[in-house]
Amino acid sequence: MKAAVFVEPGRIVLEEKPKPEVGAGDALIRITTTTICGTDVHILKGEYPVAKGLTVGHEPVGIIEKLGRNVQGYEEGQRVIAGAICPSGYSSACLEGLHSQDGQSAAHGLKPLGGWRFGNTIDGSQAEYLLVPDAMANLAPVPDALTDEQVLMCPDIMSTGFAGAESGNIKIGDAVVVFAQGPIGLCATAGARLRGATTIIAVETVPERIEMARRFGADLVIDFSKCDPVDEIMKVTNGRGVDVAIEALGLQSTFESCLRVLKPGGTLSSLGVYSEDLTIPLAAFHAGLGDNRIVTSLCPGGKERMRRLMNVIASERIDFGPLITHRFGLEQIEDAYELFANQRDGVLKIAITP
Amino acid sequence: MKAAVFVEPGRIVLEEKPKPEVGAGDALIRITTTTICGTDVHILKGEYPVAKGLTVGHEPVGIIEKLGRNVQGYEEGQRVIAGAICPSGYSSACLEGLHSQDGQSAAHGLKPLGGWRFGNTIDGSQAEYLLVPDAMANLAPVPDALTDEQVLMCPDIMSTGFAGAESGNIKIGDAVVVFAQGPIGLCATAGARLRGATTIIAVETVPERIEMARRFGADLVIDFSKCDPVDEIMKVTNGRGVDVAIEALGLQSTFESCLRVLKPGGTLSSLGVYSEDLTIPLAAFHAGLGDNRIVTSLCPGGKERMRRLMNVIASERIDFGPLITHRFGLEQIEDAYELFANQRDGVLKIAITP
Amino acid sequence: MKAAVFVEPGRIVLEEKPKPEVGAGDALIRITTTTICGTDVHILKGEYPVAKGLTVGHEPVGIIEKLGRNVQGYEEGQRVIAGAICPSGYSSACLEGLHSQDGQSAAHGLKPLGGWRFGNTIDGSQAEYLLVPDAMANLAPVPDALTDEQVLMCPDIMSTGFAGAESGNIKIGDAVVVFAQGPIGLCATAGARLRGATTIIAVETVPERIEMARRFGADLVIDFSKCDPVDEIMKVTNGRGVDVAIEALGLQSTFESCLRVLKPGGTLSSLGVYSEDLTIPLAAFHAGLGDNRIVTSLCPGGKERMRRLMNVIASERIDFGPLITHRFGLEQIEDAYELFANQRDGVLKIAITP
Amino acid sequence: MKAAVFVEPGRIVLEEKPKPEVGAGDALIRITTTTICGTDVHILKGEYPVAKGLTVGHEPVGIIEKLGRNVQGYEEGQRVIAGAICPSGYSSACLEGLHSQDGQSAAHGLKPLGGWRFGNTIDGSQAEYLLVPDAMANLAPVPDALTDEQVLMCPDIMSTGFAGAESGNIKIGDAVVVFAQGPIGLCATAGARLRGATTIIAVETVPERIEMARRFGADLVIDFSKCDPVDEIMKVTNGRGVDVAIEALGLQSTFESCLRVLKPGGTLSSLGVYSEDLTIPLAAFHAGLGDNRIVTSLCPGGKERMRRLMNVIASERIDFGPLITHRFGLEQIEDAYELFANQRDGVLKIAITP
Repeated sequence: MKAAVFVEPGRIVLEEKPKPEVGAGDALIRITTTTICGTDVHILKGEYPVAKGLTVGHEPVGIIEKLGRNVQGYEEGQRVIAGAICPSGYSSACLEGLHSQDGQSAAHGLKPLGGWRFGNTIDGSQAEYLLVPDAMANLAPVPDALTDEQVLMCPDIMSTGFAGAESGNIKIGDAVVVFAQGPIGLCATAGARLRGATTIIAVETVPERIEMARRFGADLVIDFSKCDPVDEIMKVTNGRGVDVAIEALGLQSTFESCLRVLKPGGTLSSLGVYSEDLTIPLAAFHAGLGDNRIVTSLCPGGKERMRRLMNVIASERIDFGPLITHRFGLEQIEDAYELFANQRDGVLKIAITP
Repeated sequence: MKAAVFVEPGRIVLEEKPKPEVGAGDALIRITTTTICGTDVHILKGEYPVAKGLTVGHEPVGIIEKLGRNVQGYEEGQRVIAGAICPSGYSSACLEGLHSQDGQSAAHGLKPLGGWRFGNTIDGSQAEYLLVPDAMANLAPVPDALTDEQVLMCPDIMSTGFAGAESGNIKIGDAVVVFAQGPIGLCATAGARLRGATTIIAVETVPERIEMARRFGADLVIDFSKCDPVDEIMKVTNGRGVDVAIEALGLQSTFESCLRVLKPGGTLSSLGVYSEDLTIPLAAFHAGLGDNRIVTSLCPGGKERMRRLMNVIASERIDFGPLITHRFGLEQIEDAYELFANQRDGVLKIAITP
Repeated sequence: MKAAVFVEPGRIVLEEKPKPEVGAGDALIRITTTTICGTDVHILKGEYPVAKGLTVGHEPVGIIEKLGRNVQGYEEGQRVIAGAICPSGYSSACLEGLHSQDGQSAAHGLKPLGGWRFGNTIDGSQAEYLLVPDAMANLAPVPDALTDEQVLMCPDIMSTGFAGAESGNIKIGDAVVVFAQGPIGLCATAGARLRGATTIIAVETVPERIEMARRFGADLVIDFSKCDPVDEIMKVTNGRGVDVAIEALGLQSTFESCLRVLKPGGTLSSLGVYSEDLTIPLAAFHAGLGDNRIVTSLCPGGKERMRRLMNVIASERIDFGPLITHRFGLEQIEDAYELFANQRDGVLKIAITP
Repeated sequence: MKAAVFVEPGRIVLEEKPKPEVGAGDALIRITTTTICGTDVHILKGEYPVAKGLTVGHEPVGIIEKLGRNVQGYEEGQRVIAGAICPSGYSSACLEGLHSQDGQSAAHGLKPLGGWRFGNTIDGSQAEYLLVPDAMANLAPVPDALTDEQVLMCPDIMSTGFAGAESGNIKIGDAVVVFAQGPIGLCATAGARLRGATTIIAVETVPERIEMARRFGADLVIDFSKCDPVDEIMKVTNGRGVDVAIEALGLQSTFESCLRVLKPGGTLSSLGVYSEDLTIPLAAFHAGLGDNRIVTSLCPGGKERMRRLMNVIASERIDFGPLITHRFGLEQIEDAYELFANQRDGVLKIAITP
């Protein structure tokens, strides 16, 4: 089968690989649609290390080709998705609700980021076939009424963006800011709307993303190239600050701005993948006495999460279709990476079809 | 192997049965210590229906005899416990944290009480051997420093009683009442203490249980045969009522008394197994406007829960040893049932050793 | 001044009363718009007892006429609302977040329903003037951009209905049913939508209310005169049941139906004012072992709650304007009661203007 | 009256001041016992700026001398305490539960640290008399059975230390570390015990504090002068790390160590008052993907909090008596500061009696 493989920093190439063997608890999925994530670009650039020869990608939509002999409750031929994060279900981490930090059979059951396996510690979804471990915890049947593209954001960015809103514990009437309106930030904006925030401020400068932010629920978009976003947010909130600030970029500057606009008692909900140590400014942190919270979230996974997210789509609460700005065949995936990594042509997400 | 089997209402008898076959995800445990639960008495009396021929019991301590071929992270010969409730880990119920209502491979993944399998829907622990399904989610190694008897309460009554305190969301400084000080109620008393309640009122009339209630953390025990407990509780709390009322018996009268002593905004945390419809008195419920909560809990299970409960024992926070008032060999289990069902001889819990 | 006064069961009449004296912590409000609540009808009928001579009504919009000498942070002439529930702020109940159960200066600070003062224990809002106690905790300035009618639902039904969704702890992707689509039920439907429920089922039979339920966010309306709502809900949810069932009527039948459609682990969020003891059916309660919750809520009040609810209106998330089906002057309030109590002419809410 | 007044950095001196005037909502308290806090030393050194001439101190025990004319529910002559943090009750901050960040009559009602008034923005408790604003929200009667010294820790360090445990959301069976065992850290240790942590690790090096840590509930004390505490904690927890790490010192090194010993999904609960920007190490923060939380807490106040803390003392759960290592008259307070600021003679807390 064909698979997009990490060869060395700077090179992800399409290669021929053997079709995976199906273990007792696994399912083999024939991929019908997948996509590229910002994290994949970090892998491409060598900023996030993975094993050479690994198939990348963690956002699968496909058809069950073969079920392991212990897998019950599914049928071959069913259309399914699996989350970017594949919890085992049985680890201590899972049993206490930390599905993304799943240490599987490790003695204490916890491992940082351990639930993220596809395209990280095992072969991923940018291929003709994907092997899904712990299939009974992870395969989520796609309702007939929904297309592949409609559910393509569920495995990662929708789950991640919504988690930003959920971990922030947004309440009805909250003022929320979302720093950066890339795919994750846009989903966080949509998630904030879905949880009842009523003053949603998006910070962005790319015109297409500003437009998209409004479409996904921002009441106000601040173009940080035209004004100081911290000043502007404090002005808009009459000096009160926001209840929840969502960081969706992964930089010191946005992390810090989140703290500066937070009301005492407010929550910084962080989604970004950082690449260096972070600094907490003393004043913005009220010397540690502001009753503030900083929470981080890794994309929730598992079949129940996927079911719920598909329900959001099916209920027509939000249409993430417009996020898909480009479409490529799997054989053109190297071109797709080139486009996506350089953020050319207004790209948000690319549908890849084997 | 020998096993205590439900034959018909009124008869649980020791029979010879074949040793179970070990499936891929199972573990076979050689039982070293087990016990009888109040629920088993309901089964004995035919009040709670189970299949004829089923081995009863759901509180296992034992040694791993054989591991299924897919089970990793354990070794044969290890001493382990498993909870009365055996979550699969992979069901939708589990993935949203409802381990006790586990529908396993059912389409929607939920089933009332579905996590309770031992001695209910599959063979139980009152036998020489026990087959534990979904072993990787359920086997919890026992620390060497702890004896079988020390951890014997973890699988059920300790987990259940503590859940009463946890679901009640007890806060530091709370006034809590626990109605009835049988094994579950005593564990709820201990759990309330462990969560920071500072006025813990136990209601009981049996002298041994009154004594035990004090030992497990009650600040005050009200003997309901000597005064009206509702009046007394209101007096003791200066008319304020309690923050949390825990029902640990399963009767209308105690359920109702819980509501009557609850402060506005308070929580009734219910542990009892009821056998008839319940009535909520209008006045005690403030016509539905008192910001009250009624929460029910089924014994939390799974290996992480067991690990934590054994940690409580190992830390010497509480010693549940005194709950074991009697000891019988498995071959005498019919006598043990006779004693326990009739609550003779001050019995609280009986250790059964095959 | 003119005021609608409870004279005896069956009679609320417009009378002349002296304008209230303004105490140090009070504010006198000149009412510009108010409305009649279902609770007022209970008072009219003598089902909920209040003192003879009391001015009824608890949903005020008005202008600050005079501030008590200790009241800071406001100006005379400001347009404000106050919640139906007027917390003192200083009671023990308030300090632990139980604003609606405010015992004010009572020794232990708690009193069932004690936060509800207007038209219950002190004179209410169906009058030319209203005295607001603990003004600094209760007066919420109305943004200029919002009309009286736009904020008229904030003091009670919007706060109550939303509380049904909030107390139910609705999560993204939840299936929620709301039994009865009167004014409170419609607001609960809107609140469920605002919290991220994606399968919202309303149960109602009056055509205008069915139509309104769809407008406020129901995905599906079940006409209980045409089918059994319990069966229908179980069918629609594929046998899973709902995550949260909201009772918005106050009857045994709807309370019971809520339990019957609840998934194991689900929450019954009760808003209705009951008039007799309630029965919990054993089977629907899973004998107390279903990990279920029953929560009740009394309308949250206080200026911060009001600010947030007005924010919901200002953000155009929901337009409660269509709920106002009729308008009367204060001098015609007896006619308004006659219409409202008999639910004639498709009435939902009536704006009353002195 | 005599009062300890901040004159300039390095000088707090006892001066004669007029007895305060009592406003309508105030109460005048004749101080019978008070104490010095670490924060007072920051003030003394000029590290935390207050107005010259301000009376310092925020931990009052005393007798009601005079009540403002609007204050109900109390009597002159009653013995009371008030928290270090004095919420108004009526602010938006209070109404949403953020009592410590109380902006009082400010337009938006929020102010960082705004609830801390005594010895910060208004005259404090190291004096013969103290004026308590918003008395009805703040005066908490002391039960007759408790001495002044027994309740002396309630206003600040007990409330703060417990908040560290509470905000960390400790669960039964948690492993918790508390960095530094000064008065606040010791109370955090006690609080962790009270919430059900079963592996409580204290980090300290002063022998008296090590001894005290064991007394207040630590299962294990690590002397950081003898080993690397991070390594040791990871070893003790078998590589799992702690569920909750409490920072009780206010330094980069302890803040950072907390992150390094935290399990994925764990919480850093920060109590320290920092004096410079903080750095979050990338690896310890799992690049923002570890589902971790950092929460800060300012001492909860208000009469209900005080009632609950005194209940903890009355129930004999913990005896904070041993924390009082020294006693001085008010006239010797300058000597007391000298001793306390230099941490001489094994000092923990000093009782000051006017």
